[in-house]
Amino acid sequence: MIIVIKPGTSPQEIDRINQELSRPNLKTETSLGKHKVVIGLVGDTNELNPEQIQAISPCVENVLQIKQPFKRASLEFRHGEYSEVVVSTPNSEVAFGKNAPLVNVAGPCSVESEQMILDTAFQLKAAGAQFLRGGAYKPRTSPYDFQGHAELALEWLATARQETGLGIITEVMDAAELNAIAEVADVIQVGARNMQNFSLLKKVGAKGKPVLLKRGMSATIQEWLMAAEYILAAGNPNVILCERGIRTFDKQYTRNTFDISVIPVLRELTHLPIMLDPSHATGKSQYVASMALAAIAAGTDSLMIEVHPNPAKALSDGPQSLTPEQFYLLMEEMKVMAMAVGRSWK
Amino acid sequence: MIIVIKPGTSPQEIDRINQELSRPNLKTETSLGKHKVVIGLVGDTNELNPEQIQAISPCVENVLQIKQPFKRASLEFRHGEYSEVVVSTPNSEVAFGKNAPLVNVAGPCSVESEQMILDTAFQLKAAGAQFLRGGAYKPRTSPYDFQGHAELALEWLATARQETGLGIITEVMDAAELNAIAEVADVIQVGARNMQNFSLLKKVGAKGKPVLLKRGMSATIQEWLMAAEYILAAGNPNVILCERGIRTFDKQYTRNTFDISVIPVLRELTHLPIMLDPSHATGKSQYVASMALAAIAAGTDSLMIEVHPNPAKALSDGPQSLTPEQFYLLMEEMKVMAMAVGRSWK
Amino acid sequence: MIIVIKPGTSPQEIDRINQELSRPNLKTETSLGKHKVVIGLVGDTNELNPEQIQAISPCVENVLQIKQPFKRASLEFRHGEYSEVVVSTPNSEVAFGKNAPLVNVAGPCSVESEQMILDTAFQLKAAGAQFLRGGAYKPRTSPYDFQGHAELALEWLATARQETGLGIITEVMDAAELNAIAEVADVIQVGARNMQNFSLLKKVGAKGKPVLLKRGMSATIQEWLMAAEYILAAGNPNVILCERGIRTFDKQYTRNTFDISVIPVLRELTHLPIMLDPSHATGKSQYVASMALAAIAAGTDSLMIEVHPNPAKALSDGPQSLTPEQFYLLMEEMKVMAMAVGRSWK
Amino acid sequence: MIIVIKPGTSPQEIDRINQELSRPNLKTETSLGKHKVVIGLVGDTNELNPEQIQAISPCVENVLQIKQPFKRASLEFRHGEYSEVVVSTPNSEVAFGKNAPLVNVAGPCSVESEQMILDTAFQLKAAGAQFLRGGAYKPRTSPYDFQGHAELALEWLATARQETGLGIITEVMDAAELNAIAEVADVIQVGARNMQNFSLLKKVGAKGKPVLLKRGMSATIQEWLMAAEYILAAGNPNVILCERGIRTFDKQYTRNTFDISVIPVLRELTHLPIMLDPSHATGKSQYVASMALAAIAAGTDSLMIEVHPNPAKALSDGPQSLTPEQFYLLMEEMKVMAMAVGRSWK
Repeated sequence: MIIVIKPGTSPQEIDRINQELSRPNLKTETSLGKHKVVIGLVGDTNELNPEQIQAISPCVENVLQIKQPFKRASLEFRHGEYSEVVVSTPNSEVAFGKNAPLVNVAGPCSVESEQMILDTAFQLKAAGAQFLRGGAYKPRTSPYDFQGHAELALEWLATARQETGLGIITEVMDAAELNAIAEVADVIQVGARNMQNFSLLKKVGAKGKPVLLKRGMSATIQEWLMAAEYILAAGNPNVILCERGIRTFDKQYTRNTFDISVIPVLRELTHLPIMLDPSHATGKSQYVASMALAAIAAGTDSLMIEVHPNPAKALSDGPQSLTPEQFYLLMEEMKVMAMAVGRSWK
Repeated sequence: MIIVIKPGTSPQEIDRINQELSRPNLKTETSLGKHKVVIGLVGDTNELNPEQIQAISPCVENVLQIKQPFKRASLEFRHGEYSEVVVSTPNSEVAFGKNAPLVNVAGPCSVESEQMILDTAFQLKAAGAQFLRGGAYKPRTSPYDFQGHAELALEWLATARQETGLGIITEVMDAAELNAIAEVADVIQVGARNMQNFSLLKKVGAKGKPVLLKRGMSATIQEWLMAAEYILAAGNPNVILCERGIRTFDKQYTRNTFDISVIPVLRELTHLPIMLDPSHATGKSQYVASMALAAIAAGTDSLMIEVHPNPAKALSDGPQSLTPEQFYLLMEEMKVMAMAVGRSWK
Repeated sequence: MIIVIKPGTSPQEIDRINQELSRPNLKTETSLGKHKVVIGLVGDTNELNPEQIQAISPCVENVLQIKQPFKRASLEFRHGEYSEVVVSTPNSEVAFGKNAPLVNVAGPCSVESEQMILDTAFQLKAAGAQFLRGGAYKPRTSPYDFQGHAELALEWLATARQETGLGIITEVMDAAELNAIAEVADVIQVGARNMQNFSLLKKVGAKGKPVLLKRGMSATIQEWLMAAEYILAAGNPNVILCERGIRTFDKQYTRNTFDISVIPVLRELTHLPIMLDPSHATGKSQYVASMALAAIAAGTDSLMIEVHPNPAKALSDGPQSLTPEQFYLLMEEMKVMAMAVGRSWK
Repeated sequence: MIIVIKPGTSPQEIDRINQELSRPNLKTETSLGKHKVVIGLVGDTNELNPEQIQAISPCVENVLQIKQPFKRASLEFRHGEYSEVVVSTPNSEVAFGKNAPLVNVAGPCSVESEQMILDTAFQLKAAGAQFLRGGAYKPRTSPYDFQGHAELALEWLATARQETGLGIITEVMDAAELNAIAEVADVIQVGARNMQNFSLLKKVGAKGKPVLLKRGMSATIQEWLMAAEYILAAGNPNVILCERGIRTFDKQYTRNTFDISVIPVLRELTHLPIMLDPSHATGKSQYVASMALAAIAAGTDSLMIEVHPNPAKALSDGPQSLTPEQFYLLMEEMKVMAMAVGRSWK
């Protein structure tokens, strides 16, 4: 249930309304949008009578039920106003959102050495990326495959962050590593395989740092938004949703199926910002450019693209990685595309 | 197996090479591309010795094996040259292909009355479409649902063709109706449910008219190209491939999943032109615009978009139909997008 | 809508009720079950008032709405009584149904020669099968693969039928072949790829011969029953439903996924008899035995099993074919299993 | 790579062979089967020369490569001998395996109260079950749904274990709860959503307690075996594989698709014991009995069935739960089925 407050209502009156609503088994959350203030109510809302709430104050404009099973994640919860997730990086604050410039995240699947990640980071920065992605802990299908350089890789990422000023996005696989990761990462990634690792979601939610939530390989859109809800319900409003391809019946030519229509669907359902990852979706570097352009055309807020200095020798995901040079050229095309659809570009 | 002929070879010499290759269980097909001539061989090619073929004439540049199970449909069969399917419509010749202008097909799911189809056709023409689509025979899940106005609808389509000069695309469901349809249609559509109706494919192939082959709801890309191969093998080189959404595990918000990455995948595999149908893929009119733009950004040659004068009262597929006004506005956006990716627009 | 008639009602009164119900846009179908008579109404039933129908005769016990989109195929349409499809074979009448003995269908994917099909037929008969299956017309993914021996194969099947007395099941792919097939076949098969070839369904329905309707590779259960409804609506009540594996995300070890829980699901939804085909479902002969036993344990009415005299040399589907010896041994196990679940065995 | 030792080789000689093989980056694991001893080698086996290993001792019968990506989980790793996972429960030791009696696990989705779980446990024991399942920590799609009674539920399970002597199977969702769970559980369950939570798999593997590894909703069989490999590689050989339904395109009538053919497939690939869970697979109690019988017919080693004293009032998964009375009757049928396929019953 949400309570829309009339424009111009004083903070004192909003506080008073919040206090009036206070009861066990009910949480209130106030969203200060650009044009309106909305108080969301989550919990035992069944006992609440909209008319009684309306009567609390003349500043209450409207009381509305949220019909979706996801509450805080729903667009209704913010009364139609899209949220902006603002991330502080050394270079600047970067905002993810429908009305923000396109955000570009790039980097290798895994951090392979200090030199490699530093060199890559400088090239990505030169190409215009705002974030460096790179795995310190890697979820690998086989226990015998390279599992990431762990703490060492986190240190190298910290160096790359310091040297280039790029923001860092890296994946958490185990709550035990959360503190170490949070010291380096500007955005913490929850990977597709852990999208329904509810314990991890709660802990990541409690941590407060912005979270990039990748869609599970066969997660429905509703399950994905419910996973976001776990993070939001734990008190962390800074969630970015990342589509990275779904599993379907045909895997002969692409690794996954790029579900690009999530963009208009999510716009109807949620206020959260959207990222698309054409590299994991297709699994082949030669398909990344056209899919990145398509994602911008369809309205994505952000892109994640795998870039490796030497894809042929990558320890993981080489076939889907662009070279820094390819990425540079793609960024030029992406800029043109962003302009064509009226998306600003930093 | 294909034989690449040296540039400047005389038609007489090409004829002579063809005759030298003539044997039972082997068919030759000569493609006259812009820059080269290629003779394709299909049949018992196992017995053929590339060196012997090379020795037939000094004008033979190269002899190559085709490794794909689809032969005539493969890009190799034309030695990397994309084909153009040229369709004669009353207004003009319209070419479908990688290097041709974007082709726009629009119209209602089914032809509901003469007035309705005429009015719609004029509006689509005004908006810039080159083809009118509309079903005379409708494949409906239930035998009790409206099955199309059949011959009557064909007559109305003929009138719309004559009055507006638009080309006509309509679906064949039964070989018995093929002649009647071929008299009206400029392009004959084989629907998703009949993509592996091999008897129909052979007969449509024998007919000679251009064919729009929709991808089956759960057809792999390879199966789709093998279905095209049935038409090509029956002697009809004019096949256009149309992606219209595939069936996956999530149907809650979209009717199907729009498999947009078929565009770069098909470009690697086949010389045939590509069409995308965002209306059937998403099943909701509010998602069509962003998906149409994404398809152009990804490089489609053509779009098929459902338009109905009054979607709320449509006899079928109303929820996914744009109004003519919405289509007009979308065409404006599509034009901008086409320019942004360097696709010409007529 | 169905009208349940009181036990003991005279045929004359039933006729009279039927006449009272007669109107345009409405069809009545009388089912004479073992324990009750039910009149089904299909068409514009919205205008019908159950109370008025009740008032037609004191012999009307009950008037009920059918909520499913499939009407004639629904279990409600026969008021909970399962139908029996009785097929006349030279040897005897064979009934398919929940309360009939298990029916065993076996044979090769395609009829390869007269000798081959005759030898196989005799061995299958010796093992206890009642039907010989074998393709004369084969739906093959590639136009260059063996397409079946066509009319010649039909002749050989006719010989096998005459010599062994087994019933014949063979697939129709094209309505043009329907008459020729109907002369030989005791049951006409509509294959998975044609499950939504509605033109063919209508024509097969009009023909009257019993029909085996295979489930499409990615057809939902509801779509499958709607396809059966096309046949039933065309006037043919003799439809058997055959599950043959569905397409899912994992094809590494089995060709399809054997959807065995269709058995209890169909029992709730439809009165039609059920067949299971573990050969196409798994695609590997070594998995057929355990899946055939599981199907009997789950309550199937019938099994279709691929058997080839020399699987290694089969022109199609060799890897999933049992040898006649393996089939003989499996039949022994199946008999034990049938007894364990109380299914009679002929 | 595995080394098969000749029958009758002394333990001293086996030790000596193990020592000869000792080198960094290589682990050896000796399996003492009933008929043979096999030494498995995992790690950098590329440098090993089979002939040199053969030369280590005349007691080496054979040296074989394992071609599967899963090593310890592969059937080859034990040279074709199926493993037995023996679990100590208060009542007795219970063995899971191809040659062991059928093991029956039953219980509610979640442990709702001490009384509820005690009553249920006594009824299940009376019906012949050997294990009680029940969730203390529940993975729920929504953060607002009942999440389980946690530690309290573990205490109640401990009481039920003590009172009835049944073994306990309960799910771990978070490594932080592993110790508490391991004190109560005889078998620790890793749920479908955590099948690729590799951190958890490693920790559960290090713990040593028998593990029930549920297949992920859209995990391929190979991914499932690779997940088992994580546990085995961490030193825990006691893994049971549990199929619980996969996600496909059709969810209208069943919650998931019961992939019953995993039974013969797993038998070819792995030595690990197999459990089937028809309750989660179908999601409807009325389908459980036929699917449980089918699973036994297909050769499962074990069944997991949801039973709740009052399904209509269950806090989770009520629709798929049997009552204790229904379970009792099903056990009677299952016994008959086990006998029909030659599976012993305790």
